[in-house]
Amino acid sequence: MSLIVVGSVAYDGVETPHGRVDRMLGGAATYISLAASYFTKVGIVAVVGDDFAQEDTDLLTSHGVDLEGLERVHGKTFFWAGKYTPDMNDRETLTTDLNVFADFDPKLPASYKNCSYLLLGNIQPRLQRNVRSQMQKLRLAGGDTMNFWIKDFRDELLATIREWDFLLINDAEARMLSGENNLKKAASAILDMGPHTLVIKRGEYGAMLFRKDSFFIVPGYLLETVFDPTGAGDCFAGGFIGYLAQQGFDLQSDHISRGDLSRAVIYGSVMGSFCCEQFGVERFRTLKRAEIDARFQEFRNFTTF
Amino acid sequence: MSLIVVGSVAYDGVETPHGRVDRMLGGAATYISLAASYFTKVGIVAVVGDDFAQEDTDLLTSHGVDLEGLERVHGKTFFWAGKYTPDMNDRETLTTDLNVFADFDPKLPASYKNCSYLLLGNIQPRLQRNVRSQMQKLRLAGGDTMNFWIKDFRDELLATIREWDFLLINDAEARMLSGENNLKKAASAILDMGPHTLVIKRGEYGAMLFRKDSFFIVPGYLLETVFDPTGAGDCFAGGFIGYLAQQGFDLQSDHISRGDLSRAVIYGSVMGSFCCEQFGVERFRTLKRAEIDARFQEFRNFTTF
Repeated sequence: MSLIVVGSVAYDGVETPHGRVDRMLGGAATYISLAASYFTKVGIVAVVGDDFAQEDTDLLTSHGVDLEGLERVHGKTFFWAGKYTPDMNDRETLTTDLNVFADFDPKLPASYKNCSYLLLGNIQPRLQRNVRSQMQKLRLAGGDTMNFWIKDFRDELLATIREWDFLLINDAEARMLSGENNLKKAASAILDMGPHTLVIKRGEYGAMLFRKDSFFIVPGYLLETVFDPTGAGDCFAGGFIGYLAQQGFDLQSDHISRGDLSRAVIYGSVMGSFCCEQFGVERFRTLKRAEIDARFQEFRNFTTF
Repeated sequence: MSLIVVGSVAYDGVETPHGRVDRMLGGAATYISLAASYFTKVGIVAVVGDDFAQEDTDLLTSHGVDLEGLERVHGKTFFWAGKYTPDMNDRETLTTDLNVFADFDPKLPASYKNCSYLLLGNIQPRLQRNVRSQMQKLRLAGGDTMNFWIKDFRDELLATIREWDFLLINDAEARMLSGENNLKKAASAILDMGPHTLVIKRGEYGAMLFRKDSFFIVPGYLLETVFDPTGAGDCFAGGFIGYLAQQGFDLQSDHISRGDLSRAVIYGSVMGSFCCEQFGVERFRTLKRAEIDARFQEFRNFTTF
């Protein structure tokens, strides 16, 4: 196993202009793991309730995701429901039932502690930090966060990301974390907080990668129909770290070039785009690695001049 | 002379988070001509009042812009004033005094009618069409429009753009013109309206180019400070057509590749980015061609993977 993914495994109810699903597999760790599984062997650290269905376990294991770290406790699995605006650039949360996720305290199986790559999904920063500190042979660690932690848990968050190699957030979060409206200035401020590498996700507009001495920008993939953007940012994270893990890169020792990181951003963008093509995780039931590489090539074709 | 630019020459009052200027040279034709002047010889067709200042005439002539088509009539020059939102993605119009522009009826000097390239700035579609029909040896013609004409002058606009090689509009206008929210579908619908080539400008998010069989997307240039976005879209148009004119391309006969058009989009993006660096047309007082080519190379650097 090479990559450990920590975060939520959930059930989601989603309504978009293209339809509605009352209950389906979701959660950041689910999306990250499924996306990363096309590149590397993944172990998941999460908690579910006793309502968690066998078919959902089966989907993860069919992608080779190790479930030793998937804790099962008495109660219900985290449930979230939301409704997207017509242009799908925004969404309204209708329900958040944390259920067993409210007391989530990530427990790392012994076999996970020597893995090289760690992706910390958006959970309480203190928990992210605890996991990070238990990993003994890390080559590359990073993760995501959200406005809630930036606003109300700033000191804990800063102490947490100081130890990360990379931070993956969206543009609004980058502005909030840095206090800078301009993304170039925001990136510069965030790189002073610890991470060597910052990836800013911009939804349909693509993504940006910043290091101290260089940056890279890619536009978003142009889908004819976005069925459901839920999980696209997490799939981006999965493609990004998955590719880096597959290549065996070690960011800490600067064995990685901007070119390598740029290609990781493209694989992240590719996985995010596939995610939007069907509701929830549906696309990952049929997606093949050859389609991923073909879309990587498409990115080259429509961005080269 | 190779390129004819038709549109408004105006005075603008602009307020942005970085300052305020009560009255300065502006207007679509001004920005388009100045930007294109770095690539090719430009003639302008516009109208100004008797308040139009010698120093503003001098700025245009210092860039080699031919003013034979700049009509001077009794009255005041078109005046527009607006105030930008803090993130500068939107603006509120405070004043629109059409003045002599209200009766603008473009008159083409005889020497302009044999020029090869035509850029029609955003004016009444019927006037755009009249100009187009007077040009006798066109190799490439296209232009801009806006929500007002799309909404209330749809038939005239459709008859006008049917004769264009390319249409340059922003994403909101593309959605309105096509009735499609998705930009890929919108582009496909618009390419059925006549133009072989569609460029969709996305402000800070860059630009997209569509032809029947291919497309190209470039992210926006990342400025540390956007002083004033006024005119950036027009400068994009100037860079785009200016480069194509300089290269001598002929879109109608398909002598132009997607690669050529993509480079024109990059030069458009470059000119739009310079425009934002200072208020109004200020940046064009000092800008050198070498800076333009250096920024073109920067685009390659931050988009290549």
